[in-house]
Amino acid sequence: MTSVVAQQIPYDSAAPYRSLSLNTATTKRWTLAEAVDGAARAGLGAIGLWRDRVDEVGATTAAKIVADAGLRVSSLCRGGFLTGREHGPAALDDNRRAIDDAATLRTRELVMVMGGIPDRDLAGARARVEERLALLVPYAAERGVRLALEPLHPMFCADRAVISTLAQALSMAEPHPSETVGVVVDTFHLWWDPTLADQIAQAGAAGRISSYQVCDWLNPMAPDPLLSRGMMGDGVIDFAAIGRWVRDAGYRGDVEVEIFNATVWSSDGHEVIETMKRRYRELVLPSLVG
Amino acid sequence: MTSVVAQQIPYDSAAPYRSLSLNTATTKRWTLAEAVDGAARAGLGAIGLWRDRVDEVGATTAAKIVADAGLRVSSLCRGGFLTGREHGPAALDDNRRAIDDAATLRTRELVMVMGGIPDRDLAGARARVEERLALLVPYAAERGVRLALEPLHPMFCADRAVISTLAQALSMAEPHPSETVGVVVDTFHLWWDPTLADQIAQAGAAGRISSYQVCDWLNPMAPDPLLSRGMMGDGVIDFAAIGRWVRDAGYRGDVEVEIFNATVWSSDGHEVIETMKRRYRELVLPSLVG
Repeated sequence: MTSVVAQQIPYDSAAPYRSLSLNTATTKRWTLAEAVDGAARAGLGAIGLWRDRVDEVGATTAAKIVADAGLRVSSLCRGGFLTGREHGPAALDDNRRAIDDAATLRTRELVMVMGGIPDRDLAGARARVEERLALLVPYAAERGVRLALEPLHPMFCADRAVISTLAQALSMAEPHPSETVGVVVDTFHLWWDPTLADQIAQAGAAGRISSYQVCDWLNPMAPDPLLSRGMMGDGVIDFAAIGRWVRDAGYRGDVEVEIFNATVWSSDGHEVIETMKRRYRELVLPSLVG
Repeated sequence: MTSVVAQQIPYDSAAPYRSLSLNTATTKRWTLAEAVDGAARAGLGAIGLWRDRVDEVGATTAAKIVADAGLRVSSLCRGGFLTGREHGPAALDDNRRAIDDAATLRTRELVMVMGGIPDRDLAGARARVEERLALLVPYAAERGVRLALEPLHPMFCADRAVISTLAQALSMAEPHPSETVGVVVDTFHLWWDPTLADQIAQAGAAGRISSYQVCDWLNPMAPDPLLSRGMMGDGVIDFAAIGRWVRDAGYRGDVEVEIFNATVWSSDGHEVIETMKRRYRELVLPSLVG
């Protein structure tokens, strides 16, 4: 059994970026080594990894690059895509490899985006998510990895994720131990939900908040909804309110910034990180430490 | 006090289109008179009107055009947009005019799209919706008009409607009589919701379902999310499931087809109505009468 780092990072206003994590999707053009170097030089405490960047060097080498730079891996993104009609042994195998990689990278949190609908049977697709999640839980538990179910914004229900609310993710997690199935709180996906405060409190009470991910909702939206995520402060999300709920729910883990945005992607990575740090300190951190 | 037609249309498989209503937004290029003529010639029972088309001739003339063709007005769209920071007497006056027009048009249902957020204070905007709705209720009640709160898809929360779920609309309706504040069930906006079946049942039990509106969710989405509504059958929505929930909730009113879609808008209106009738009979009607 691989030992995995438990992530309880005390917030410290004297070291404000210790809990801040750069998700590699934010600096999309950078290799893993470049992103790790950029994050470490900027004084961040952690990095969130996408599998494409890990696969370029392999999980063992990736783990070494991160450890040598003194960073934690806040999460690995992503497993999932398990809603197909067929049983999908290949999809399950791929998820087992993702679990192995998470363990190798010494992160407890494997973000799971469960997939959209192959037809018009939404209830059926949701039932398959529950069935196939159950198949992966023992494998993840043996490796000390938590399957972090990510509710995506309802506009992605058809093509990406039939988990659309935090409450639904919690309901799917409920049959399983909290150390093996968690949920992701991503502001872009959840900010609109009129009962979000209660849902975050429930997620905290259940000990299931795997990750707090922040980015803004741009208004108007970008033509490609996927790329409508913005830097904190560039959109309409009230990070102070959501941050209070996350803090009050007892979350003390890393705060990951994951932005898909054509303008951000075409900017210099170091400048993106500096902006991210400033906005984090101004808009996100105060409610988490207050 | 104006008498308004109560809309309880028994479904009749021998007259399948009697409960079908053409929303004027579906045949966007047609004037009110053209849309009424098209709907009547196609054997539909009703028409849903947008205010822009009503305003072109005035509500009294519009009411006469509809009545002369033997149609009902299933709903008037729309009032609302009451989330601004200022008290908004002009916005309230405009809503009172919309209520007057609904009464003149002899429809009970005035669709209310309540507006987006002027800043980052989503909770504040939602509170203003409740306050200003309460200001309109007596005026609507005196005229026999029901304010039909429409939850819009969460992707419109920032720019159009801070009411994002049916449960939230029901909660906002709850302080008011069911004959004066209702809710709209629109498949495009609500299909993704994992607890939709329960919410529709609650809406029915409360006697608050003002309108059942159908159109499909296209996948992939159109570049403009507003125009991503499709003809039933062209997308991913399971109309049989949602139709059963609406029927089991006791709804027996008109079924309105409201499609914003560039391809539909560039097609011949009569052909659009024929396709709409066919898809309605194949995909929507069976679960409503079954």
